Amino acid sequence: MNYVGVDIGGTNIRAGVVNEGGDILAMDSISTLRDRCCEAIVKDLVDLVCRVVKSADMEFDDLEYIGVGLPGSINRKEGILIFANNFGFRDVPLARLIQEHINLPVYLQNDANCAALAESVAGAAKDVSSSITITLGTGIGGGIVLGGEIYSGFNDVAGELGHMVIVSGGETCSCGRKGCWEAYASATALIRQTKRAALKNPDSLLNLTFGGEGNDRDAGKVFEAEAEGCDVAARVVKNYIHYLAEGITDLINIFSPELLVVGGGISQQGENLLSRLRPVVEAGIYYKGRPHTEIVKARLGGEAGIVGAAMIGA
Amino acid sequence: MNYVGVDIGGTNIRAGVVNEGGDILAMDSISTLRDRCCEAIVKDLVDLVCRVVKSADMEFDDLEYIGVGLPGSINRKEGILIFANNFGFRDVPLARLIQEHINLPVYLQNDANCAALAESVAGAAKDVSSSITITLGTGIGGGIVLGGEIYSGFNDVAGELGHMVIVSGGETCSCGRKGCWEAYASATALIRQTKRAALKNPDSLLNLTFGGEGNDRDAGKVFEAEAEGCDVAARVVKNYIHYLAEGITDLINIFSPELLVVGGGISQQGENLLSRLRPVVEAGIYYKGRPHTEIVKARLGGEAGIVGAAMIGA
Repeated sequence: MNYVGVDIGGTNIRAGVVNEGGDILAMDSISTLRDRCCEAIVKDLVDLVCRVVKSADMEFDDLEYIGVGLPGSINRKEGILIFANNFGFRDVPLARLIQEHINLPVYLQNDANCAALAESVAGAAKDVSSSITITLGTGIGGGIVLGGEIYSGFNDVAGELGHMVIVSGGETCSCGRKGCWEAYASATALIRQTKRAALKNPDSLLNLTFGGEGNDRDAGKVFEAEAEGCDVAARVVKNYIHYLAEGITDLINIFSPELLVVGGGISQQGENLLSRLRPVVEAGIYYKGRPHTEIVKARLGGEAGIVGAAMIGA
Repeated sequence: MNYVGVDIGGTNIRAGVVNEGGDILAMDSISTLRDRCCEAIVKDLVDLVCRVVKSADMEFDDLEYIGVGLPGSINRKEGILIFANNFGFRDVPLARLIQEHINLPVYLQNDANCAALAESVAGAAKDVSSSITITLGTGIGGGIVLGGEIYSGFNDVAGELGHMVIVSGGETCSCGRKGCWEAYASATALIRQTKRAALKNPDSLLNLTFGGEGNDRDAGKVFEAEAEGCDVAARVVKNYIHYLAEGITDLINIFSPELLVVGGGISQQGENLLSRLRPVVEAGIYYKGRPHTEIVKARLGGEAGIVGAAMIGA
């Protein structure tokens, strides 16, 4: 069995032909140019899919369906994109629009769920049936895989793991609540914490050498400053790990998945982060006497979106 | 099909014969006398079950299995009670001990999970396939029912919903973490909040008429004082609802169950509590445009433990 996976992002649309083991047989991408009308984007998406299928040396008859992952809420049954913040789209019958050009079933899914499914099929969680994948990026994306399938609730919108409050009344989150996990443990949050610390400690190595205060993009800088011996950076990292652990511990107390997979830019720190995270989580989990959740780094990179989207109907 | 359900509590052990619709055909109870050795308790439990089966006019051959709900962690597959805080028991092969006397399969489950399953089979969540039941008592018990079955993770200990942190670094919880939901929204927490407010406002109606400061047991008193027009009590209730809503909103963002069922003593407030809780939750949920979780009062009372235990193998 082979499938098409399409990953719609704010910057690029990527598509691939993927086999049932999660291997990408062919892939390609285009710019999203997201300020365009929806029909123009769909037309380019269809052209991209045609090109990728051709480059895999296949016909549409060789494929089961097209899976589409996107950053927003969906109505799975009706194939409708309900709302995508980055695009301003509302109630777009995306599956139907694509099917007007290509005669294959089209399934939609949220992109964080696709990333989790990809890790489950072909990545870090390949050998277990229950896993939670969190992606530490602009926000915290979350996907829950139970019995090998995405759990998305009766209304397709479960798994908003970044939007559990860990500091009631705390930092205002992009969702409007105060104190969400995402506002303390996303890459954006770490950058904010780093800038505040640099501003408060202008003579610190963090500020002077690593441009902490002026750093708007790279959440990794604070780890570099820490490695160079900067105490201010070390405190920022320690504090960040505390908040990251709060949410992960909550998820383990709630779900007890076999694996908790950490992805996103910050996960590139690998064991430098995870080896310090695990004992903090360990100290907080409720049942200490049972075999418990392992915390590991995501294995798939940017291709997770394509692979996960390709698997959503399998 | 008929089953035996046994609900082991710190004070009483209750047993019943239950049919597949969740109706109790016969029931009885004994004192737990929990300071005794485990074998003595099991002997009384076995006698209780024999008596109940007889009073239902049945033989053991008419029954499928015995389900046992208990306040602790279990190993379901091996029928072992791993740890029960109230009893100090560790690693008790409870299923085997019962089977030495009665020739029926014996299944174990955590009591909060049994309460959730009971609501799902015969209570408020009878008509839906996904529900979460929380019990606001000494702590916050939680049970997750997905596709009609208890979700308890790969290690049988998932569903510790009371032990998600909502106030990082806040009140110390019985589990050792700081800021768990249970430490802010259980009945125990409400009593603590009431006492503090009464102490701070000695001339308040709450303190003078309702004995707020000296009230160690009845979380309902603060609602009575509020109904009489006490501002101090109204503030305590408002604050409590805020914390209760934080956790419920988190659970809806994470699970999107069809129903969220609120049980335990405080749920006796019914719409007086729920009608004020719903708009606070509504304001915090992430996806507002989708059909979402209804919040309702638990329908079963003390018998939920028996019914749920009876259903765990069905």
